Amino acid sequence: MKIVIIGAVAGGASAAARARRLDEDAEIVLIERGREPSFANCGLPYYVGGEIESRDKLLVAPADRLRQRYRLDVRTRQEVTSIDRVKQTVDVRNLETGETYTESYDRLVVSTGASPFRPPIPGIEGPHVLELRDLADADRMFDRVATGGSRRAVIVGAGFIGIEVAENLVRRGLDVTVVELADQILPPWDPEMVRSLEDHVRQQGVTLKLNDSAAAFEEATSDDANLVVKLASGEALPAGFAVVCIGVRPESGLAAESGIETGPRGGIVTNDHMQTNDPNVYAVGDVAQVKDFITGEPTQIPLAGPANRQGRIAADHIFGRDSVYRGTQGTAIVGVFGKTAAMTGHSEKLLQRANLPYEKIYIHPSDHAGYYPGASSMTLKLLFNPDNARIWGAQAIGTTGVDKRIDVIAMAIHARMTVYDLEEVELCYAPQYGSAKDPVNMAGFVAAGVLRGDQPVTHCHFVPPTDQPRDWFVLDVRSPGEFASGHIHDAVNIPLEELRDRMSELPTDRRIVVYCFVGQRGYMATRILNQNGFDVCNLCGGFKSWQQQYLLETQS
Amino acid sequence: MKIVIIGAVAGGASAAARARRLDEDAEIVLIERGREPSFANCGLPYYVGGEIESRDKLLVAPADRLRQRYRLDVRTRQEVTSIDRVKQTVDVRNLETGETYTESYDRLVVSTGASPFRPPIPGIEGPHVLELRDLADADRMFDRVATGGSRRAVIVGAGFIGIEVAENLVRRGLDVTVVELADQILPPWDPEMVRSLEDHVRQQGVTLKLNDSAAAFEEATSDDANLVVKLASGEALPAGFAVVCIGVRPESGLAAESGIETGPRGGIVTNDHMQTNDPNVYAVGDVAQVKDFITGEPTQIPLAGPANRQGRIAADHIFGRDSVYRGTQGTAIVGVFGKTAAMTGHSEKLLQRANLPYEKIYIHPSDHAGYYPGASSMTLKLLFNPDNARIWGAQAIGTTGVDKRIDVIAMAIHARMTVYDLEEVELCYAPQYGSAKDPVNMAGFVAAGVLRGDQPVTHCHFVPPTDQPRDWFVLDVRSPGEFASGHIHDAVNIPLEELRDRMSELPTDRRIVVYCFVGQRGYMATRILNQNGFDVCNLCGGFKSWQQQYLLETQS
Repeated sequence: MKIVIIGAVAGGASAAARARRLDEDAEIVLIERGREPSFANCGLPYYVGGEIESRDKLLVAPADRLRQRYRLDVRTRQEVTSIDRVKQTVDVRNLETGETYTESYDRLVVSTGASPFRPPIPGIEGPHVLELRDLADADRMFDRVATGGSRRAVIVGAGFIGIEVAENLVRRGLDVTVVELADQILPPWDPEMVRSLEDHVRQQGVTLKLNDSAAAFEEATSDDANLVVKLASGEALPAGFAVVCIGVRPESGLAAESGIETGPRGGIVTNDHMQTNDPNVYAVGDVAQVKDFITGEPTQIPLAGPANRQGRIAADHIFGRDSVYRGTQGTAIVGVFGKTAAMTGHSEKLLQRANLPYEKIYIHPSDHAGYYPGASSMTLKLLFNPDNARIWGAQAIGTTGVDKRIDVIAMAIHARMTVYDLEEVELCYAPQYGSAKDPVNMAGFVAAGVLRGDQPVTHCHFVPPTDQPRDWFVLDVRSPGEFASGHIHDAVNIPLEELRDRMSELPTDRRIVVYCFVGQRGYMATRILNQNGFDVCNLCGGFKSWQQQYLLETQS
Repeated sequence: MKIVIIGAVAGGASAAARARRLDEDAEIVLIERGREPSFANCGLPYYVGGEIESRDKLLVAPADRLRQRYRLDVRTRQEVTSIDRVKQTVDVRNLETGETYTESYDRLVVSTGASPFRPPIPGIEGPHVLELRDLADADRMFDRVATGGSRRAVIVGAGFIGIEVAENLVRRGLDVTVVELADQILPPWDPEMVRSLEDHVRQQGVTLKLNDSAAAFEEATSDDANLVVKLASGEALPAGFAVVCIGVRPESGLAAESGIETGPRGGIVTNDHMQTNDPNVYAVGDVAQVKDFITGEPTQIPLAGPANRQGRIAADHIFGRDSVYRGTQGTAIVGVFGKTAAMTGHSEKLLQRANLPYEKIYIHPSDHAGYYPGASSMTLKLLFNPDNARIWGAQAIGTTGVDKRIDVIAMAIHARMTVYDLEEVELCYAPQYGSAKDPVNMAGFVAAGVLRGDQPVTHCHFVPPTDQPRDWFVLDVRSPGEFASGHIHDAVNIPLEELRDRMSELPTDRRIVVYCFVGQRGYMATRILNQNGFDVCNLCGGFKSWQQQYLLETQS
């Protein structure tokens, strides 16, 4: 068996190592365009920022080790220029010598990844417009930051990489502007979830320009700037350099030219074993189109974990094992200047686009028991299917403990569990680690309460900040002190403790929207009024969610 | 509906709050022997240690708040002295006034908890032998520590509470000895998992006396000691005070006297709705016998999370809802001087006692990507059923990220998943939070490799430190430098990189036990030798597990 693998990062390296474990006699050729196989892709921004001090640390599987331990035929600085599926050969060019040759294969694994999208904006090919895909890119950015010149950088795109680069350039003392076409940072998350993060990013000194985009990159020759980034809004931003992080496109051209089928978003179409339409050719990692774990629909999500898993599954299948890729869940996490955003499964906007039935809840629990020092609060959103209570997805924003809760829910989604299962699962509790009712349990309680009809909820957009008369009566059940420090306008304050004695003050001809700070007292108030015949619902996530959504003065 | 609840901590308080949410009109009487309902039980050691600075913080649900928000009839410092199940009444004594009265109920919820076990050791009732169950106990210990006198304390019992008290007394500057009858601390864990923690505890200045017990507490009158703790071994330990933390017993006497059925370990027998043999009487929390989530067998596990859940389920059932308690998983966590021990499901010793089929694996992964600063390693043990691959349990010891992995596996156990599911689950990955192959995935890979026969493993007790000739050939595939710094005796060193060329040096008439540092190179070596016809297995967890088990010089 002779296997040729194109691309030695994540998926390709995993396929190679797995293939060797399965067969000592196989001939395994690993062809990599870059200088190094299997570098730590996800560490690049932190190397630029100085958090990872040594460049060597990024070389997680040096070529020599792969050769010695796995007896792989590693060929770096070589590029596959064409695939002949009939002859089962690839043409290869040595980028150092210019030499070309032909290599045969029994099975071919395409792991060419995805390349940063570079739209045809005037000047985008200029020397001061960078990207961050590989070590060479990181070296270039590192040098820019280390040497003198303008201390201003413009980042185009506020996705994972854009935000990570922003954080690391700020760490290096640069003056950073981030431009994003969407009306939010971190587009995989829902917009109301990242409002507080946008605020946090601005507080770090970053200028955020949402709903705007780069229209042109023009060279400049001032002392202070190498280029000027012209925005669609008309603004002009002088900078030492710009970084384009608008997203990535599967690098599937080579495969497509040989007749390998690709999908609407450019990814190579694969079956459950990562096989393409040619059974001798597999595709893994960011270049592959995969299926969504939850819906089974085709999708394209570039993530390191799935890439590794796909490489292993392709190698398994090459050697006759029936391993199946179950699909990509979309579990993702990003650090944002000391805060964390994590998610798994489907977002609300994705559910809306797909026209799937959903309900949602918000909670703001502490990462650990409030009575133990150092507790910090997070915001957790849970999306679920009201028809069968299955979990669609979850998103969380906070400081610590966010990754844990999203990982637990990711496991629940993997098990195709329901919100009722989140109520019952028994998680670690000691006061420095969690609560007897963990945030995951709490999310389950609230969601199950909605489904059981115990707690009808509504959401912030039903009580927007407005001077118009409302269709409903808005009831604030917090203390007078809390009410005085900020509330939804037109709200009437009756503290929970007095509610039972003051029900005569409430209207019986209109729906009552109850709220407290995070939703818990509102829940009790909803139960009281509901049992007393009022048409009532609880504002899910309370005043805190409302503040986050409408970004009012008092940040909590 | 009139509900009387005996005991207002955890389970009782949860039952009361839930009952009120379900029925505004119910009469709910909450009778609590102590001064405060619903205090933060699990915070007591940290209040003694000063980590929690304010005593008020422990009062998580003050009586006034319960009265006002939930309209509960809260009666503190009152004790139920008898239950009449025929008349459906309880006799109550007011501990302040001595008054007694009778209260009727439609439904009774027994949430009397568990009391520290005090074996009949001479002197155990003396004034200098403390325990730590409630706020009054905490106040007593706090005063002991704050005032002068001997700075020496003896803790009897090295379970959760014993270890937490030890940590907090050390924080207060005391000289602490912990005496434990078993041959290990933290008895719910398997012994080899806590060896490194025992070492860590000793490094903090604590004297650990395993395999020993208190035989007598004798009063002393020296300046330096109020008592002398005589050990079974004959040793005498002078101390200012002793703390008995040998475990707890369900406080079920009151219920048992009224004819409520109790189990062999004293817990009140309950059905899936937390109902006792009297359908009008429920039992929740530490006083209740529950079923084991995994096996369905009766068990007795005092934990706060399950207590809360049981309270909710009992209230649900009282109001006609069909809520079912699914059983207790035994998910637990404890902080040990900055390190963390967490577990879920069954331990190896429990599986052995129950004579259940199991296999196990050990890994030593980093909490996050090794190339990102601050990574720390953990030891993770996974136990599973070789017949159906289901997960029996998991234990982890480390510094950070331990709670996360155990919580994820707790969710997997709750979903009755297999080790194959751990391979495939998609978890959060960015270098500061995890690895593309998360420790949970890694545990799945190794366990699945064992079940698929890809990786025959063996465990440390097959290669004990001994001068006797072994039945197998022990092969160390680490580098010569690693080998020189410590190895299993009689081991022969052939680095993985040279193995394929030096196979002629290996015996063909004996099993070969391969090891490296944590098991990964050993896995590759096992694959190489296996495919070349050798009888080979990998020492699971490698030299690191071996060191941990046999506590050799080089701590890593």
